[in-house]
Amino acid sequence: MSELTCLVLNCTLKKSPAESSTDLLGSQALAALGDQGVAGTIERVVDHDVRFGVSPDEGDGDEWPALRQKMLDADILVLATPIWLGQPSSVCKMVLERLDAELSETDDQGRMLTYGKVAGIAVVGNEDGAHHVTAELAQGLTDVGFSLPANAVTYWVGEAMQGVDYKDKSPTPEKTDATTKTLAANAAHLAGLLSHSPYPAPD
Amino acid sequence: MSELTCLVLNCTLKKSPAESSTDLLGSQALAALGDQGVAGTIERVVDHDVRFGVSPDEGDGDEWPALRQKMLDADILVLATPIWLGQPSSVCKMVLERLDAELSETDDQGRMLTYGKVAGIAVVGNEDGAHHVTAELAQGLTDVGFSLPANAVTYWVGEAMQGVDYKDKSPTPEKTDATTKTLAANAAHLAGLLSHSPYPAPD
Amino acid sequence: MSELTCLVLNCTLKKSPAESSTDLLGSQALAALGDQGVAGTIERVVDHDVRFGVSPDEGDGDEWPALRQKMLDADILVLATPIWLGQPSSVCKMVLERLDAELSETDDQGRMLTYGKVAGIAVVGNEDGAHHVTAELAQGLTDVGFSLPANAVTYWVGEAMQGVDYKDKSPTPEKTDATTKTLAANAAHLAGLLSHSPYPAPD
Amino acid sequence: MSELTCLVLNCTLKKSPAESSTDLLGSQALAALGDQGVAGTIERVVDHDVRFGVSPDEGDGDEWPALRQKMLDADILVLATPIWLGQPSSVCKMVLERLDAELSETDDQGRMLTYGKVAGIAVVGNEDGAHHVTAELAQGLTDVGFSLPANAVTYWVGEAMQGVDYKDKSPTPEKTDATTKTLAANAAHLAGLLSHSPYPAPD
Repeated sequence: MSELTCLVLNCTLKKSPAESSTDLLGSQALAALGDQGVAGTIERVVDHDVRFGVSPDEGDGDEWPALRQKMLDADILVLATPIWLGQPSSVCKMVLERLDAELSETDDQGRMLTYGKVAGIAVVGNEDGAHHVTAELAQGLTDVGFSLPANAVTYWVGEAMQGVDYKDKSPTPEKTDATTKTLAANAAHLAGLLSHSPYPAPD
Repeated sequence: MSELTCLVLNCTLKKSPAESSTDLLGSQALAALGDQGVAGTIERVVDHDVRFGVSPDEGDGDEWPALRQKMLDADILVLATPIWLGQPSSVCKMVLERLDAELSETDDQGRMLTYGKVAGIAVVGNEDGAHHVTAELAQGLTDVGFSLPANAVTYWVGEAMQGVDYKDKSPTPEKTDATTKTLAANAAHLAGLLSHSPYPAPD
Repeated sequence: MSELTCLVLNCTLKKSPAESSTDLLGSQALAALGDQGVAGTIERVVDHDVRFGVSPDEGDGDEWPALRQKMLDADILVLATPIWLGQPSSVCKMVLERLDAELSETDDQGRMLTYGKVAGIAVVGNEDGAHHVTAELAQGLTDVGFSLPANAVTYWVGEAMQGVDYKDKSPTPEKTDATTKTLAANAAHLAGLLSHSPYPAPD
Repeated sequence: MSELTCLVLNCTLKKSPAESSTDLLGSQALAALGDQGVAGTIERVVDHDVRFGVSPDEGDGDEWPALRQKMLDADILVLATPIWLGQPSSVCKMVLERLDAELSETDDQGRMLTYGKVAGIAVVGNEDGAHHVTAELAQGLTDVGFSLPANAVTYWVGEAMQGVDYKDKSPTPEKTDATTKTLAANAAHLAGLLSHSPYPAPD
């Protein structure tokens, strides 16, 4: 599977060089995928001028098309997002809306260009919300053509109403670390299978 | 406000006398409401033979009608639920489905019998899910005619992927305790206002 | 209640002068509130340079502070949002994140500045998602201090997988119209009560 | 792939012989899987005495173990559920809670017994809720070890606040029909791949 590639999108609200717990967990997912022989990069979405919209290119300097091309070139997409109010970040929702355009972008056999790609999810917050964020993203990602492996998510949150950041935890919480490794192994396995055996075209 | 009353429904999956973290948090909400002069009781739903359905009475020994009467007699309903898979318990969903029948049960001016009643939410789990459970319940409860005060929820969850139960935490986590008090004060205040000034009838 | 005021925030992805179904439903809510004696305005969030973030003012030309002031001046806030992928728009999530800052903005008695304000919800999409959007918004709004009246939401969606826009329906669907009127009447009633009898301060 | 098998669980609230829109959509999914060479059955959960709980066997006549065995014998599980209050049915939530027990049920290499199985989702309601139900189920199913194919869901809902049942629509809505076929083809494809190439064991 050494030829598989991935893209991790960090959906933090904060531009570089601000520290980001989401960057940390996303980078750990990237490293774990690397251990599976999957090469890739992590991109912080807000460092690019991505526009609100539901088309592949909103024009006028929109930088989604460049990120979209990286997504199309990759076998695995990991959406990494912080939790705000128990929900995915607005930046993550903006990315899902842009991915919604893929419903109309099909190959010559009528399959979305995302078909055959595998999605993973990484969620981090001070407290509470990881399962729900997973739900929102899992639904959105399957809707727009991605496949989800078993245990498609890694996450960390603290105890209720606490304020500790994942980036300030040391060492990395053991269970989150093991979960990240499982996500990477399963995503790589599934992407390897689908890269050799694509979904059938619709009738 | 000394005449206000409340009902707390404990939506644990476990019948009495099994210990229940939800019972603990629900009882704390009941006590906090008592401090506001609101008398009431807590009922464990699975100790009653409540049937699946969406009518006020499913017949044949269905014990929802008795619980429903307690709800109709109260000014404040607190739904207390455990978290499973980051979501409300099936028992809590069964209660919401039974409350859905209230959409068709109106007074002689066309208002639901729940109009004027105030709802509170209490959520507890080993880890993660309180905000999402709140979302599900807040939506369901406003749909079926309840009003929600500011900060309508109290909750506790542990750190990601941990297994500690709320009932085994001692003393009660301070922030949860303060939040329970706020919920009780705000619910009592709002119920007091609505008991004297009901919503207008539809045209 | 003639002195009550409201603010409707239209969370469409599209800048003016693009037509917006959300603008239509939000404007209908504004008009229905007007019939209750509640004066106010509707603002399209993307016409302002609102920044991603979770503080009251992200600086550097951020235009949230001006919208925030309108929110603080109003008794009723209606969040109007389109549905994308069955979920609230990213713009709506951005607004919720900005409102999250209110958790730290309290009066001299320790109450959030949003306490005493009432929230309404207006949701529109081609198909499917209104209840879930309501859930997300109801939870977020109660978390940040708003109160929700009975039947706090109005909405329209079409049949599954259809593409008709609300703005192209004529006349307005009758049930949605009645629901908008109920939302307005209940929100005005609750805001009137709370404007005269604020929530108690915490101990 | 002629040896693949499936199980469809109908999570309606109504016992047989009551008519069930969920039964209709679930049976259509079963037939579509049959066209892909996948044999199976549909079971109405409430016709069995399934108990609330989170263990594989709650004892005392609990009939989940028999359904669980059918699930373990199948390559594909389709959860078919009605929508109530925009959310999955309580019966569906009860099934998810029973599936939660699989987190602790592993093979001699430490993999959940659900690993390698593929899940599909079928959702039906009078109006609104399919995407959110998908979200809840997709998250729960990936958490407990299932894999989700591209476009893992089929659904039907009517226009907002309408009361038409899917079982009373004739002929079957064309888009739902096409979506059911896509779900079946993709689920069969993915199950075929995973049946020959299981996920790796954890380290």
